[in-house]
Amino acid sequence: MKHIRTAIVLLLLYSSGLCSLRADEGMWLFNDLPLVQLKERYGFEPTAAWAEHLMKSSVRFNVGGSASFISSSGLVLTNHHVGSDTLYKLSTPERNIMEQGFLAKTQDQELKAPDLELNQLISIQEVTDTVKAAVKADMSPEQAVSARRAVIAKIEKDSLDRSGLKSTVTTLYGGGRYHLYQYKKYTDVRLVWAPETAIAFFGGDADNFEYPRFCLDACIFRVYEDNKPAKIEHFLKWSESGPTENDVVFVSGNPGRTSRILTMDALKFQRDQSLPYIMNNLRRQEILLQQYSLRSNENARRAREDLFGVQNSRKARLGMLGGLQDPGVLAEKSNAEAALLKAIEADPKLKPLASAWDTISETTQKRSELLGKGISVQSTLFHIALDLVQMAEEDQKPSGERLPEYSEAGRESLLQQLYSEAPIYPDLDQVILADSIAKTLEYRGFDDPICQQILAGKNPADRAAELIQGTKLQDVASRKQIAAGGMKAIEDTQDPMIALARIVNPEIRRLRAINDQLDELDRQAYAKIAEAKFAVEGTSTYPDATFTLRLAFGRVSGYEQDGQQIPAWTKIGGTFEHEKKHEGQSDYVLPASWKKAEPSLMASTPFNFVCTADIIGGNSGSPVVNRAGELVGLIFDGNVQSLSGNYIYTDKQARSVSVHSSAIREALQVVYGADHIVKELGK
Amino acid sequence: MKHIRTAIVLLLLYSSGLCSLRADEGMWLFNDLPLVQLKERYGFEPTAAWAEHLMKSSVRFNVGGSASFISSSGLVLTNHHVGSDTLYKLSTPERNIMEQGFLAKTQDQELKAPDLELNQLISIQEVTDTVKAAVKADMSPEQAVSARRAVIAKIEKDSLDRSGLKSTVTTLYGGGRYHLYQYKKYTDVRLVWAPETAIAFFGGDADNFEYPRFCLDACIFRVYEDNKPAKIEHFLKWSESGPTENDVVFVSGNPGRTSRILTMDALKFQRDQSLPYIMNNLRRQEILLQQYSLRSNENARRAREDLFGVQNSRKARLGMLGGLQDPGVLAEKSNAEAALLKAIEADPKLKPLASAWDTISETTQKRSELLGKGISVQSTLFHIALDLVQMAEEDQKPSGERLPEYSEAGRESLLQQLYSEAPIYPDLDQVILADSIAKTLEYRGFDDPICQQILAGKNPADRAAELIQGTKLQDVASRKQIAAGGMKAIEDTQDPMIALARIVNPEIRRLRAINDQLDELDRQAYAKIAEAKFAVEGTSTYPDATFTLRLAFGRVSGYEQDGQQIPAWTKIGGTFEHEKKHEGQSDYVLPASWKKAEPSLMASTPFNFVCTADIIGGNSGSPVVNRAGELVGLIFDGNVQSLSGNYIYTDKQARSVSVHSSAIREALQVVYGADHIVKELGK
Repeated sequence: MKHIRTAIVLLLLYSSGLCSLRADEGMWLFNDLPLVQLKERYGFEPTAAWAEHLMKSSVRFNVGGSASFISSSGLVLTNHHVGSDTLYKLSTPERNIMEQGFLAKTQDQELKAPDLELNQLISIQEVTDTVKAAVKADMSPEQAVSARRAVIAKIEKDSLDRSGLKSTVTTLYGGGRYHLYQYKKYTDVRLVWAPETAIAFFGGDADNFEYPRFCLDACIFRVYEDNKPAKIEHFLKWSESGPTENDVVFVSGNPGRTSRILTMDALKFQRDQSLPYIMNNLRRQEILLQQYSLRSNENARRAREDLFGVQNSRKARLGMLGGLQDPGVLAEKSNAEAALLKAIEADPKLKPLASAWDTISETTQKRSELLGKGISVQSTLFHIALDLVQMAEEDQKPSGERLPEYSEAGRESLLQQLYSEAPIYPDLDQVILADSIAKTLEYRGFDDPICQQILAGKNPADRAAELIQGTKLQDVASRKQIAAGGMKAIEDTQDPMIALARIVNPEIRRLRAINDQLDELDRQAYAKIAEAKFAVEGTSTYPDATFTLRLAFGRVSGYEQDGQQIPAWTKIGGTFEHEKKHEGQSDYVLPASWKKAEPSLMASTPFNFVCTADIIGGNSGSPVVNRAGELVGLIFDGNVQSLSGNYIYTDKQARSVSVHSSAIREALQVVYGADHIVKELGK
Repeated sequence: MKHIRTAIVLLLLYSSGLCSLRADEGMWLFNDLPLVQLKERYGFEPTAAWAEHLMKSSVRFNVGGSASFISSSGLVLTNHHVGSDTLYKLSTPERNIMEQGFLAKTQDQELKAPDLELNQLISIQEVTDTVKAAVKADMSPEQAVSARRAVIAKIEKDSLDRSGLKSTVTTLYGGGRYHLYQYKKYTDVRLVWAPETAIAFFGGDADNFEYPRFCLDACIFRVYEDNKPAKIEHFLKWSESGPTENDVVFVSGNPGRTSRILTMDALKFQRDQSLPYIMNNLRRQEILLQQYSLRSNENARRAREDLFGVQNSRKARLGMLGGLQDPGVLAEKSNAEAALLKAIEADPKLKPLASAWDTISETTQKRSELLGKGISVQSTLFHIALDLVQMAEEDQKPSGERLPEYSEAGRESLLQQLYSEAPIYPDLDQVILADSIAKTLEYRGFDDPICQQILAGKNPADRAAELIQGTKLQDVASRKQIAAGGMKAIEDTQDPMIALARIVNPEIRRLRAINDQLDELDRQAYAKIAEAKFAVEGTSTYPDATFTLRLAFGRVSGYEQDGQQIPAWTKIGGTFEHEKKHEGQSDYVLPASWKKAEPSLMASTPFNFVCTADIIGGNSGSPVVNRAGELVGLIFDGNVQSLSGNYIYTDKQARSVSVHSSAIREALQVVYGADHIVKELGK
């Protein structure tokens, strides 16, 4: 009887649609592609070579973002807003590349990024058994953290030594699987072309996460090796015509983080506490940066990149919170969880796994108690100081016992950031530091002993001024000197920022250790939940996003909103109408180059388009390809309805938004006179 | 021995300056003026007639703000940002008075404000004994609230019946004194002149609370009686030359609220909890209104008044918090409290008063527990609904038992607001309502039963849309109809906004009752503290601000900041330099009228000036007068250093900022061609 009853439960689950994947749902692993779904829905059967080519044509921006190789000579296509970290760092008051754009007319004009690292995924290996074997069931959370950290550090170090490739172990299914990823690293990356912010981010914060859109959110870099353009084997061909409506397209990129496996308790914590807390912090930073920017145009230029990042996060998180505050979404998650638990209860082999929910309920409670009790001190120079202090401490231990970011396998990437010559603006850093000290006082209470130590008898503004004006860490040579001197240099230096880092470091470490243990308990619990889901729902599923390469697929398709049908495409001609409609609003003023080019531009060229592929932040810059593997678009956004995708995928209105490949080509040619780049596209 | 020891303690107190008033400190009651200080510091001895004339020339804007009569025919001078509530309500998409300004060339062009009420203080009477006698020592907090409410309602009603004047009992010294204020009320108020926002608020949010400034933050109304300009007996003469540097000036206005009497426990609550909480809410509203405004210029116009209010509050509160986060300020407050407690301990008669500090410690703890647990639902239409529901309920009780805002004495002012024909923009109201529902969910937890009732199965955005689209309360006739029907109409109506108000009303009332009792306990405690302070420090002091008329005084004087001497004056010519310095920043673009008038304007005319008078929010629009009682300036701001004045007065850098009387006259004549107004000034 038991088997039959289980079967009925499964049938019920599937018929109510609670566990079956929706239509185009999924951020799939390249070593576990949705072959069945693709064949069933689109009659498409990708070959191994098709998949490998797409994987190796894909590029990860280490700062957060995706991209692709688009020529044999190392051209890399990504979003303006992904490249903007570098555009910002390359800009000066005299030459504002971020706002005004850039075009290298010849290769020797290409501008070297100060600290950009690009990663190309080369291989994926299953290491679940090795990792799980190292963590014994009877270990305390503290021991488990150490054991897991040690085995992962060893796998990564062995892989690095063996292959010379950047090697990272990725935790999948919240702890259900572990894969070793090997990446080829490019650290000589140069800017080739970027349009003006006014067209890359046309419509500004108002249009962000909205659709229809009219944005050329694109820019092009080139990777170099040995001071010459790198020879690239796998790169995407440029589609002649772009995507076809209703046909399948594929997105290959690095979605940053989703939370679809979360239990209801964990979701409620997100909804009622964590997200509201984060939103308060984001709004605080936004106002702070706005206030700083209002003082002068140069201030606005300095704060622009941080401000955009904060505004983007704020709007994205508001959408996520909106999803969790929707009784419909919640009910669906709650029903699915109840059904899964019911299935577990009905199967004696699965029943022990139910304890995972209790564990997460407990870790969630702990997280709630810790929320906002941390040390919120922030500033670029402070973080450099803290890195130097922690690196000196960690380097006294064997690699396997260190905090992961200081392990041997990751050292090169760490130093690329730590010794970056990118500009730091002390006045901006001081404003951020002062406010973050004030925030720490507010959250921990002014009378907290660490707060008193941080203040050292001054108010936050005066203390921040003293620290920023006193530190030498703005100078990269001075960072290198302290790093070279190890713990002794840290102890001996008179640098006040290092002194501040030393004051707060023990508390930061204490809280980090607690958090690491909670993460470990969560990992063990979610491993059980993943096991239960595999048993009940089958293994043909995908893990939550982890900022590693995934394949999504979907149809190019419009949608209905407020009773109106929104077409899948916008056209270049519509851009000028959109400007007119918003006359007098500063975020809707097209750059001079576009106004000049208007008569020559083909108005009917598709500009932006939407599809149902399942994406999230981190996918920005992902190539969109057709069945032939040709580049047809460039992901740059999701609409507002897609934001609850952090918790649940829907394709009713949720859409990812791309720049059409033809628009990029048209603009390069007609607006920017970059025929030399156009000739290279896909060649 | 005891007497001698007390004397020593007092000496110590005075010599350390802990209780003696600083230089120009004080927001003085008109029935208890600082005659000694004025004589000692400035050799000035105001006559009773001088004081009465200034008092009766002063005007209170009921919406929050100060003003003065400046002609015998009812001209009233205030700030643009005080009048802006009316400027906003009089504006339409076609005629944006707020942004573009207004000038009535003849009296029949003067524009009637939809709901403005101005108050002129006529008399102040001591009623402390009557109020205190009604509240017995053995009453529970609940009984005490009722008893105090009843006696106050009775005093107010008797005064209204006797005099026909608007009558309110004001609690002073946190509960140490009660005074009855009688006001003549003006409800037919018409707009005569307002400049453009671009010059009234030149420099925008960036320059707000900063100095040097270049703002014509002024506008002029006229009060009418029987449809004719009112005949005004007491009005200010217009000074020919303005103030003299270092001489004394006087500010007569209605400071809204200070917190100088607060105990250290109450201050710490402000610092670590209440102000950070309020700041989070303000930033939230600011971002929300910004986001709404970004969508179109018309949206920006609609949200402008709210947005300005929120930004102003945010910046003011940040300054207050900055004061409390300054160890120096805190130490001063703490030392003063310790000294006062020591003096109390040393005197057996005073010793029982020390229990007040424990009471406040307890009420503060309660307030901390309640923080953010309220119902945060907001929107103009929702508040109208709640007023209708509560008014119907309260009207079933005798006046003395009602919530004070529904008492008979205040009914006329209440209805002036409730039945206002001022525009309500449903789209803006909906955005505010949706966000405030979301906020309520976040603070109380989504699963809270009242939250579930508020949502009624929808998400906040959909629910807000349903409520706004379903309510008829936008129509004033519909409000009147429901109000006329009393409780039965409230129960019978199908209006969804009334239904929502009824859902949340019991919880709002429950929390209000708790809060009223905490206020009552605080009043009793602060009455004791005031008594102790009178005994130890003498009675020659002033109570915290209560949005009632006060006299402040001070010197016109510059100050030093970051090693630079900031002069007391700016000049009209500097305005154009200030614009140039901030070229390309939208808040620094002078209006066309000023650019056109530049050659004709006298560049050396003083524009704004600072003085050491002790002011706070609510003083905006206050007249500044010289010894002769002539108008020499118009308060419109305090500098950033003045903001900790909420807790402690200093004159080191803290300054109040005024528009110079000559600048107003010069601009009226040269920029606005308003000779007919200039001729009337002070006449």
